[in-house]
Amino acid sequence: MIQALGASQGIAIGKAFVLPHWEWELPDQKIDVADLAKEFERLYEGIRRSKTEINQMRTELDEVVGSEEASIFDAHLAILEDPVFMNEIQGIIQRQYKVAEVAVKEAIDHFVTMFDLLDDEYMKERALDIKDVGNRLLKHLLGAPDIALPEDTQPFVLVVRELSPSQLVHLKPELVLGIVTMVGSPTSHSAIMARAFGIPMVMGVEGKLEQPIATGDLLIIDGGSGMLQVDPSSETVSRYTDMRKRQNVVKEQLLKLVEVPSLSQDGVPLTLAANISSLKELDAALANGAEGVGLFRTEFLYMDRSRFPTEDEQFEVYRAVVQKLRGETLIIRTLDIGGDKQLDYYELPEEENPFLGFRAIRFSLERKDLFKIQLRAILRASEYGDVRIMYPLITSIDEVRDANAVLSEAKRELAAEGIPYDADIQAGIMIEVPAAVAIADLLAEEAAFFSIGTNDLIQFTLAVDRMNEQISHLYEPYHPAILRMIRAVTNAAKSQGIPVSICGEIAGDVNALPIWLGLGIEELSLSAQAILPVKDGLLRTKAADSRKLLEEMFRCKTASEVRALASQFHAEAALAPGNVQSLL
Amino acid sequence: MIQALGASQGIAIGKAFVLPHWEWELPDQKIDVADLAKEFERLYEGIRRSKTEINQMRTELDEVVGSEEASIFDAHLAILEDPVFMNEIQGIIQRQYKVAEVAVKEAIDHFVTMFDLLDDEYMKERALDIKDVGNRLLKHLLGAPDIALPEDTQPFVLVVRELSPSQLVHLKPELVLGIVTMVGSPTSHSAIMARAFGIPMVMGVEGKLEQPIATGDLLIIDGGSGMLQVDPSSETVSRYTDMRKRQNVVKEQLLKLVEVPSLSQDGVPLTLAANISSLKELDAALANGAEGVGLFRTEFLYMDRSRFPTEDEQFEVYRAVVQKLRGETLIIRTLDIGGDKQLDYYELPEEENPFLGFRAIRFSLERKDLFKIQLRAILRASEYGDVRIMYPLITSIDEVRDANAVLSEAKRELAAEGIPYDADIQAGIMIEVPAAVAIADLLAEEAAFFSIGTNDLIQFTLAVDRMNEQISHLYEPYHPAILRMIRAVTNAAKSQGIPVSICGEIAGDVNALPIWLGLGIEELSLSAQAILPVKDGLLRTKAADSRKLLEEMFRCKTASEVRALASQFHAEAALAPGNVQSLL
Repeated sequence: MIQALGASQGIAIGKAFVLPHWEWELPDQKIDVADLAKEFERLYEGIRRSKTEINQMRTELDEVVGSEEASIFDAHLAILEDPVFMNEIQGIIQRQYKVAEVAVKEAIDHFVTMFDLLDDEYMKERALDIKDVGNRLLKHLLGAPDIALPEDTQPFVLVVRELSPSQLVHLKPELVLGIVTMVGSPTSHSAIMARAFGIPMVMGVEGKLEQPIATGDLLIIDGGSGMLQVDPSSETVSRYTDMRKRQNVVKEQLLKLVEVPSLSQDGVPLTLAANISSLKELDAALANGAEGVGLFRTEFLYMDRSRFPTEDEQFEVYRAVVQKLRGETLIIRTLDIGGDKQLDYYELPEEENPFLGFRAIRFSLERKDLFKIQLRAILRASEYGDVRIMYPLITSIDEVRDANAVLSEAKRELAAEGIPYDADIQAGIMIEVPAAVAIADLLAEEAAFFSIGTNDLIQFTLAVDRMNEQISHLYEPYHPAILRMIRAVTNAAKSQGIPVSICGEIAGDVNALPIWLGLGIEELSLSAQAILPVKDGLLRTKAADSRKLLEEMFRCKTASEVRALASQFHAEAALAPGNVQSLL
Repeated sequence: MIQALGASQGIAIGKAFVLPHWEWELPDQKIDVADLAKEFERLYEGIRRSKTEINQMRTELDEVVGSEEASIFDAHLAILEDPVFMNEIQGIIQRQYKVAEVAVKEAIDHFVTMFDLLDDEYMKERALDIKDVGNRLLKHLLGAPDIALPEDTQPFVLVVRELSPSQLVHLKPELVLGIVTMVGSPTSHSAIMARAFGIPMVMGVEGKLEQPIATGDLLIIDGGSGMLQVDPSSETVSRYTDMRKRQNVVKEQLLKLVEVPSLSQDGVPLTLAANISSLKELDAALANGAEGVGLFRTEFLYMDRSRFPTEDEQFEVYRAVVQKLRGETLIIRTLDIGGDKQLDYYELPEEENPFLGFRAIRFSLERKDLFKIQLRAILRASEYGDVRIMYPLITSIDEVRDANAVLSEAKRELAAEGIPYDADIQAGIMIEVPAAVAIADLLAEEAAFFSIGTNDLIQFTLAVDRMNEQISHLYEPYHPAILRMIRAVTNAAKSQGIPVSICGEIAGDVNALPIWLGLGIEELSLSAQAILPVKDGLLRTKAADSRKLLEEMFRCKTASEVRALASQFHAEAALAPGNVQSLL
């Protein structure tokens, strides 16, 4: 049993198919000076074919999984147009008289080595993109065939060193039960696409295997926990088969709750909205009964592109989302770039501590030109439904006022241009910085609503980067300090009469439900997958009991005491007859 | 007028002496296979001479500025014993038949380029060390003379591309009025030494000059503000001469306050203790009238070494410090490594966000073996005066309990060994993480005292890395959230009856005095240079007025409002007759 990284949920059981490295024999002859022009023509022809192919894949993918995922290939097209990469290739041909194939291979190796050296997740992803594009170019130069997966076999679990998005797009989901990669991270493009396709995936197995996996080995993978088992006993196979079956039963049972109103057992309503990043995710959220969108992360509109999206491009997406919501609320968070989110086409400064850096509203208030474009697009979409604006990473009254000043300017401009918008559009803020908690009463006078972003709030409050393996055990949502801060924010919002919601990952933890019910919070914003399990828990939980439990929680001095109370309470609720979770 | 980085305080006015690059002609002949052994012998002889010279400098420096600064050269000795560096040099001789000088030069260039590529302040400092050691080795191989400064001239302002600690140690303070470097940062070894020598220094001038400084140019530098002026008008010269004179007058006037009790104008006592990192800094602190040490940063005992300090080595330092304090309190903070503080001999994990990473008490609780050694050394020193222990970066009750468990174990061990210590030694904590503020009432039950570390607290509370130029303007000690948090901690401490002090940089800001007096805080811990200016302000400030002002401050909604109140209040106090600051 091997513990690796879970990249896409679900259990897969099947025989391994091990994909060989994408490597070819390269011709080692030198070219003649007289043939230089011919060699360049071969290179350009290869580039043209690669571009055509990428564009074709992009179109196909657009239909299957949506335009946001498809835009991954824009980055690939950009590489083929990148003068630095192309100069490197042309230089090798021209100065060393090597054939185009060899020049491409050497240029790939050069950039990949360089980027890998940097020990930076983002640059490593870029290295993978270059390798992918370079290999495609090589394939065209060599006239080599595409990688072929066996079509005449039983469905299999694909095992591969690393998987590029363009490889993944060719996989037939009915043939590929699951994917295991030796290297790579759950934040990579291919992991995003595996999740979009619903293929279970486990990554980063390298160095954890006693011997390499061979084609034909029986594998079990659990993409939720990151578990991989090679040649399991028949007993284990039947256990996981059962587990997969039970997961499917639970999934079906939960789907029956879609139309059930989200109320506690004693009738207190708790709105369950969705966190989304794209139109496609909205479909999944609505299929899971989302009551509106509590957090639309617009940064994904800005990433995986070759330039900033125009006002029109943004407007089209915002309008499409709000129209699909048919009257339900859409809260659009303005650009939250920086930290661990970078843009290919705009260089943010390198930072020693990016989480404490130039991010989110700080970026928007520095680049008010870009900020205004986004606000104009949101305002225009507000004509088509209940759209609200949310500013991220607010730390002071000044920032809210500055942001609202840009909003007013955008409104004035639209009015002058005769473009319609909702003049009473609400502008709220994320509460995710400890300073915002400390002055929540003052902020409540300036903001139309609060949404508590627990992920960042916990990180800053505990001074813990949760992505840092060495200390991630100190990232503790049930820390008494966090409970107190959430209570303080809720009280400040209530005394000013503005609504408050929770939009961090902890909102998806069923054990935490009594905290929200106990504090009287009206809305959670969740990932699509979390909505129904939380609703199921909500239906079995009494608000009155929650309030009592919360009082007990506030008497605890340590996180483990709070956790114990929450688990015990949930275990009792989960055993209540009819609870879907009890089937697991 | 050029704005660069202030690295060591003070004004210097004088002619420039521009030091040429430390560069020599290298022989370009190859060596014969038969001469390989001879060439290695030359290399080893060069290394032996370099080591002797470094040891000699180390001894001299020890006498002049103290052993902590001298230990900078331990890192240099370690490089000469580093197998990776030495293998590189030997490999170039052996495989490429180059002479030792060329091999050394190429190895230096190789490592310096590599380290520079990493874009990491720490590694850049290491690159400078390697260059320094490598150049010394080159000098011995070439039989070149030491860099000679003109001795027969008037005192001058030294202008140099970059300055290594070993170059700085040879400077005669009576000859060198000040130093200007093109590159480098105020955290470098040479900046630390310039401050120890009291030589004004401005760094990082590169790219800011219209034309290069030439020997003989008249310069004015202000090491406090980082200002540099080339060929100033005679009017400017007389202005700065005046300013330097006034600074000296103020310095003398302030020194008269050393024996004056530190009381507010209306008689409320405020203890002014010192932040120190070494025995030498304690001398400066005592000369400035420090009433005890509120923060002894022990990490400098661990840095610039080739291994962890032993229990005895630590004990000797702690005992020397507390004996020098003659009965005044010494608060020793346990190791606060990590973040931006690294050890040469112990590799901490590379972190995306080191400030939110594996640091301080987190390191100590992971390496309890090292932690216990430090606690034993502190306990042994507690026999010689009023020694107290302080744990840094506390975020939870569990951490205080875990740390105290190690302390109890250390006590049991010493008792069993018959070694005397203060059985009632107090263990307090730093309040520098927002979580600790939120649960200050709970922590006050477990800790003997609080010291509010405002630097980190402000960084985490506002989610701002103050070293990050792009956003350092958002680092705002007067943010209403910060005031509220300091008040909450003070109230929690008071209701539990434990003392609370302030030990961040803001404690040295005279404008902030009414905050401490208004809240009833009993102690500030300051850098040596800040003690007398703060005492001077204190003597002119009434606690009663401060309380009123603080009430007004708490009605402010923005930092700029709070700042304005503080400046106005201070301006009024500063104009009071007899105030030393009013002489400026």
